[in-house]
Amino acid sequence: MILDIENGIVELAFGSGGRASAALIEQVFVRHFKAVGLNELNDFASISVIGERVIFASDSHVISPLFFQGGDIGSLAVNGTVNDVAMSGGRVHALSVNVIIEEGLSLRDLDRVAESMAIAAMKAGINIVTGDTKVVERGAVDGLYISTSGIGSVNTSVDLKPSNIQYGDKILVNGSIGDHGASIFATRNQLQTELRSDCCALNKMIEGLMSLGLGIRCMRDPTRGGLASALNEIATQSQKRFLLNQASIPIKPEVNAIAGISGIDALNLANEGKVLVFCDSNDADAALDYMKSKEEGKDAQIIGEVCAQSETSFAGVEISNVFGGRRILEWPWSDPLPRIC
Amino acid sequence: MILDIENGIVELAFGSGGRASAALIEQVFVRHFKAVGLNELNDFASISVIGERVIFASDSHVISPLFFQGGDIGSLAVNGTVNDVAMSGGRVHALSVNVIIEEGLSLRDLDRVAESMAIAAMKAGINIVTGDTKVVERGAVDGLYISTSGIGSVNTSVDLKPSNIQYGDKILVNGSIGDHGASIFATRNQLQTELRSDCCALNKMIEGLMSLGLGIRCMRDPTRGGLASALNEIATQSQKRFLLNQASIPIKPEVNAIAGISGIDALNLANEGKVLVFCDSNDADAALDYMKSKEEGKDAQIIGEVCAQSETSFAGVEISNVFGGRRILEWPWSDPLPRIC
Repeated sequence: MILDIENGIVELAFGSGGRASAALIEQVFVRHFKAVGLNELNDFASISVIGERVIFASDSHVISPLFFQGGDIGSLAVNGTVNDVAMSGGRVHALSVNVIIEEGLSLRDLDRVAESMAIAAMKAGINIVTGDTKVVERGAVDGLYISTSGIGSVNTSVDLKPSNIQYGDKILVNGSIGDHGASIFATRNQLQTELRSDCCALNKMIEGLMSLGLGIRCMRDPTRGGLASALNEIATQSQKRFLLNQASIPIKPEVNAIAGISGIDALNLANEGKVLVFCDSNDADAALDYMKSKEEGKDAQIIGEVCAQSETSFAGVEISNVFGGRRILEWPWSDPLPRIC
Repeated sequence: MILDIENGIVELAFGSGGRASAALIEQVFVRHFKAVGLNELNDFASISVIGERVIFASDSHVISPLFFQGGDIGSLAVNGTVNDVAMSGGRVHALSVNVIIEEGLSLRDLDRVAESMAIAAMKAGINIVTGDTKVVERGAVDGLYISTSGIGSVNTSVDLKPSNIQYGDKILVNGSIGDHGASIFATRNQLQTELRSDCCALNKMIEGLMSLGLGIRCMRDPTRGGLASALNEIATQSQKRFLLNQASIPIKPEVNAIAGISGIDALNLANEGKVLVFCDSNDADAALDYMKSKEEGKDAQIIGEVCAQSETSFAGVEISNVFGGRRILEWPWSDPLPRIC
């Protein structure tokens, strides 16, 4: 049976095994994903990774709306998990894709999302090798959710983690903060703006950075909860205190404007193409120069440092303003925007 | 903040990064999963797999109701993905768990599901090493969905797949058919029955079977769409014709009764603890004996064979009744029961 992609909708039968599922998988997912490695339709995929440690990461994506400025749930689901794996400092090999679809979703929207995933995978240079499709009845899910898992591998000599962080290390970010959260806020509230989500895959930049042999201690992508959540989490895990320099944190004027309108601190807004890099202070300039040489890192900055032991009365994050005043950057209770990723 | 597991409910904030998410993850998921390997709270996990091919599988679980006779969405999500990886003939190492929770779900139900996942992982002897939690507003999901991904590894000499199947091979199943589908039907329709889902992990039995060095060609778990879907899929992929012997297919009287009431062929009912094994006819008795020696395989049977080339006028599945009459076992358009897994 040939599905009518232009006008058809997803029916419950499409998710419940049998020939209907086979038709959906073949005509939507395999059609888009065969270029990125989905060939053998087994329930498992097999990948060769010899002599390295395997890295494994996983994420669900429930963003509303499904389509936004700078991306959609498909590119977000691919890039989000690619970035989670890349934070290990290793190479990303392959993704699995699980979709949970609401009965009645247009096949056209589903097709658009599948195409967007394939393009994102191609850009990141990774394969989509296995997956699964479920359909639930109207009202039992809001349009479409996507869970992605990724595997990669890393040289056994590399082991990035918060406990590696040393007093005096520098903290870098690869560009402006809050673009994703602010652009979703703008889309939901129909604000006119040129701002786009920063949604992109960071694996290639990170592979290049790791190949330089610098003193990289730990990396993390500040997604839900933004810079404030990610840094507080790492401060707690490493039992260190971080001091950020407000003036050096790159924030776009449009993001500041939306932060003003919404009353949300830009440091709490989600990012989907950013990485925080903790680096030996002797290597920080080299790391910065490398990131600046790449499109994903052209606006990179050194935004702060890990305080000396003598200054570490507590584990946490402080931020200094242009007048030298300091405030504690709180660990937010939650992201100010639900369903941001 | 201490969550009130007994009386509390899941709030939107619990899924949106920040301290609220940290509280939920720590007090529900880490509490149950630390015994099964969830220690470092990174977005990725690292697993050592040296000199073997990595196997990767992934599945979403949207079963309704969340709790049923013989299991719940948690044990199903663990066992389902463990079995998907095990079908490669390799060893299962680790799982990731992504949960999408409806705002308002009781913390008690969530806790019960997390505990059930931990118990299932322990029984299967595998670790839960990474994961992610999202919360969506009331009405945007029906209770709780769980996506699990699994990784395993297999000796490079093993490569199970439909194209390995040879004319004359035997087809085995490890026990009675349709228990899961029939028991969900019974739960939904409040039928009184002792029948329980067959939900269980098959990795240990399969590891043992593979260690015997028999001529195993391909394995598959007949989940959604049941035996009829799985066999038709493999027949198409291998371009072979299978002949089943109706009398040798184990079906419990309760399942036959529910099949009668519901009008659903037991061969279309889902299974969650069954595997179809395609095996060299010379080794079929040894494989059967081994399966029968295990709890998960005590009711195993040889249920049919791959027709000779001379009898293969088409790729598909036939079934012979006790009088020798044959009918084509159709590839169902969909599983007769939506949201069965």
